[in-house]
Amino acid sequence: MKPVKVGVLGLGTVGGGTVNVLKRNAQEISRRAGREIMITHASARDLTRERICDTQGITLSTDPYEIINDPEIEIVLELMGGTDLAKELVLQAIANGKHIVTANKALIALHGNEIFAAASKANVMVAYEAAVAGGIPIIKTIREGLSGNQVNWLAGIINGTGNFILTEMRDKGRDFADVLTEAQALGYAEADPTFDVEGIDAGHKLMILASIAFGIPLQFENVYTEGITKITRADVEYAGELGYRIKHLGIARKTANGIELRVHPTLIPERRLIANVDGVMNAILVQADAVGPTLYYGAGAGSEATASAVIADVVDVVRALALDAQNRVPYLGFQESEINNLPILAPAEIETTYYLRLTVEDKPGTLADITGILAKQNISIEALIQKEPKQGETRVSIIMLTQKTIEKEMDAAISAIENLSSVTGQVTRIRLETLG
Amino acid sequence: MKPVKVGVLGLGTVGGGTVNVLKRNAQEISRRAGREIMITHASARDLTRERICDTQGITLSTDPYEIINDPEIEIVLELMGGTDLAKELVLQAIANGKHIVTANKALIALHGNEIFAAASKANVMVAYEAAVAGGIPIIKTIREGLSGNQVNWLAGIINGTGNFILTEMRDKGRDFADVLTEAQALGYAEADPTFDVEGIDAGHKLMILASIAFGIPLQFENVYTEGITKITRADVEYAGELGYRIKHLGIARKTANGIELRVHPTLIPERRLIANVDGVMNAILVQADAVGPTLYYGAGAGSEATASAVIADVVDVVRALALDAQNRVPYLGFQESEINNLPILAPAEIETTYYLRLTVEDKPGTLADITGILAKQNISIEALIQKEPKQGETRVSIIMLTQKTIEKEMDAAISAIENLSSVTGQVTRIRLETLG
Repeated sequence: MKPVKVGVLGLGTVGGGTVNVLKRNAQEISRRAGREIMITHASARDLTRERICDTQGITLSTDPYEIINDPEIEIVLELMGGTDLAKELVLQAIANGKHIVTANKALIALHGNEIFAAASKANVMVAYEAAVAGGIPIIKTIREGLSGNQVNWLAGIINGTGNFILTEMRDKGRDFADVLTEAQALGYAEADPTFDVEGIDAGHKLMILASIAFGIPLQFENVYTEGITKITRADVEYAGELGYRIKHLGIARKTANGIELRVHPTLIPERRLIANVDGVMNAILVQADAVGPTLYYGAGAGSEATASAVIADVVDVVRALALDAQNRVPYLGFQESEINNLPILAPAEIETTYYLRLTVEDKPGTLADITGILAKQNISIEALIQKEPKQGETRVSIIMLTQKTIEKEMDAAISAIENLSSVTGQVTRIRLETLG
Repeated sequence: MKPVKVGVLGLGTVGGGTVNVLKRNAQEISRRAGREIMITHASARDLTRERICDTQGITLSTDPYEIINDPEIEIVLELMGGTDLAKELVLQAIANGKHIVTANKALIALHGNEIFAAASKANVMVAYEAAVAGGIPIIKTIREGLSGNQVNWLAGIINGTGNFILTEMRDKGRDFADVLTEAQALGYAEADPTFDVEGIDAGHKLMILASIAFGIPLQFENVYTEGITKITRADVEYAGELGYRIKHLGIARKTANGIELRVHPTLIPERRLIANVDGVMNAILVQADAVGPTLYYGAGAGSEATASAVIADVVDVVRALALDAQNRVPYLGFQESEINNLPILAPAEIETTYYLRLTVEDKPGTLADITGILAKQNISIEALIQKEPKQGETRVSIIMLTQKTIEKEMDAAISAIENLSSVTGQVTRIRLETLG
């Protein structure tokens, strides 16, 4: 069979890695695919820049339209990032009858519904394995490998930067700001780390995972995101004393009242495998009704790990070129007519357990006041640590784990507790999930 | 589209589970597949036996030929086990133009080459996700999800019975025989546990994984298997003292001299995620050149976990019905013409590190004799523990970790050490892999 011609938009970390891996493993890939996959064209903003890849044999251009309008090119790899120009180019390429492979989580999370509708109309594929958890084939796993299951919930460490920071805080007893600076120096975190540390990036990925798990439309606006910037060394240590680790988790869960979509720091029991996923690594734990819990672990970012997912998508697209739309794997794993608008649970309605840390005056009655407020909101206490005051201090830390409660009850309790004259400052509240 | 008619051979644990999950999740499955999947016929040896599934609406028979000869049935699920009758039925079904989904690891490991050749001739698919690691979609992952990679090595805990036994031995300080008896009572181990504890079952699965990882023919006769029956509580404890856990691993590795295919007890550093996979759970760690290390974890057996893999295969087969053979995923992930007869390394040539335990007379010169023998075979010692003799004993245990050495050098050293008059009994030797 003749080679499949592929055009690449963007020759940065992911685009360059894809060129490198396709070249190095050309023989192994065609042993599998039965066809040669040939990158004939690539575009980049600045052609004079030094590249991580050898572009010999590839026609280069600063104009991405040259690629998406080239009649010879069957598959376009969108590896440039961003959501404005990328969206415009992807929609135009689709209109031109090109199949799309993208690593762009923001593009899919924010504009996926529109892109899939256009692709369906044009009868082309849009593949996005590389958009979530880098090289871990989690999209394929949920869409195809678990297709016999109803997914109950999934929980993922899906941002390597955040996981690196939390791992360093725990292993070395360091502060958030200190580790962030190092992560920036190492290139793990951007100069503006907001997307990573505030959970936006993880929120994009969680939205994609939830859509393919439950067959719901993409709706990033309904994902609750909370960052890790307020996690202190003390919280990491107290969590450890109680047998927990703090991870920045994306959680999607199907409940009787609606779907939960939330990214936030989470205490998880240290004996769970996912609690031991450290550094920049990613992992997704999926709880499905037939298979039970399964976990998928690997590099969530990086040039060649992401390229691995891009290339797997290209091979899949090549294989499915000959299929009618009905037999191809649907964009979100579920047939388009079967995507359901299930209700999304408001954050205030989410039921979970909590870790609370308070600073209080060490005097009689304080604890009674606090536990009284919790009791009034029907919140039971599962564990409590009260630390001795430090030398010369009159204030002490109280750490509590609660039993399950509805978030709005907890909000009300925390407001009331913070109003107590014996309580100093704000109450630290971190959600806890047993993931059992 | 009209429903796909499926016939099932065998209504035991896996067959019954498949009927149950297909019924319970019928709606979710057709939301994904876009087509109804209907089990119309099933065969079982004894129709009077009580079943775990409701067989209403399914035509039952004791004669499997009724199913494989039924012109209406497009896909046959071989869930009966065994290799004689199963092979005969599968080959006949293939000759009749049926696609096959099987959970039978022994059938594929021992007769896969012949079955795939027949299937290729008949232009039908043979899918076997359920044959390895139950519900973990590891076949799909390696064949499709990692198709851009060259696999360097993989290591798997792929027998739940063995892992349950080793976990209990460590957690509760129990002896092998004692835990085996309990595992038999719990139904985790067969009355004749040979297949599980001697590594035969894991060997079958490893062979399948190696074939799809490296594109080599199935050749179970070249898999080295060593069981866990000689692992003692003492070894588990010493390994723990040194920071290791003992797991029954299947390892396949591509080296410059050939492919390693081996199943044996293995010390692995306790900080590795796979060292923390406990009980009956399975996990496979894959090291591939682009993606780096990835790990896949889940239930390796059980009625519905295995059914999950069977159903995913059925959905895949349904989608690929319309494809010509060239575009379907090849049986072993590589095109048939691209399966290579790479040399398999003889066990004596394998290079690894070792844990050694010896019982010796506590007298001067003993250690010098032992280390002298090791030095003569170019074996360096990485760590050494010598225990004080117990009250009233004159013999002591010596535990050593070596650096990397070729197995035949180690065999020679052990022979020489066992011939020393100061050494009592046999030297215990367990391989060690850092998996880093």
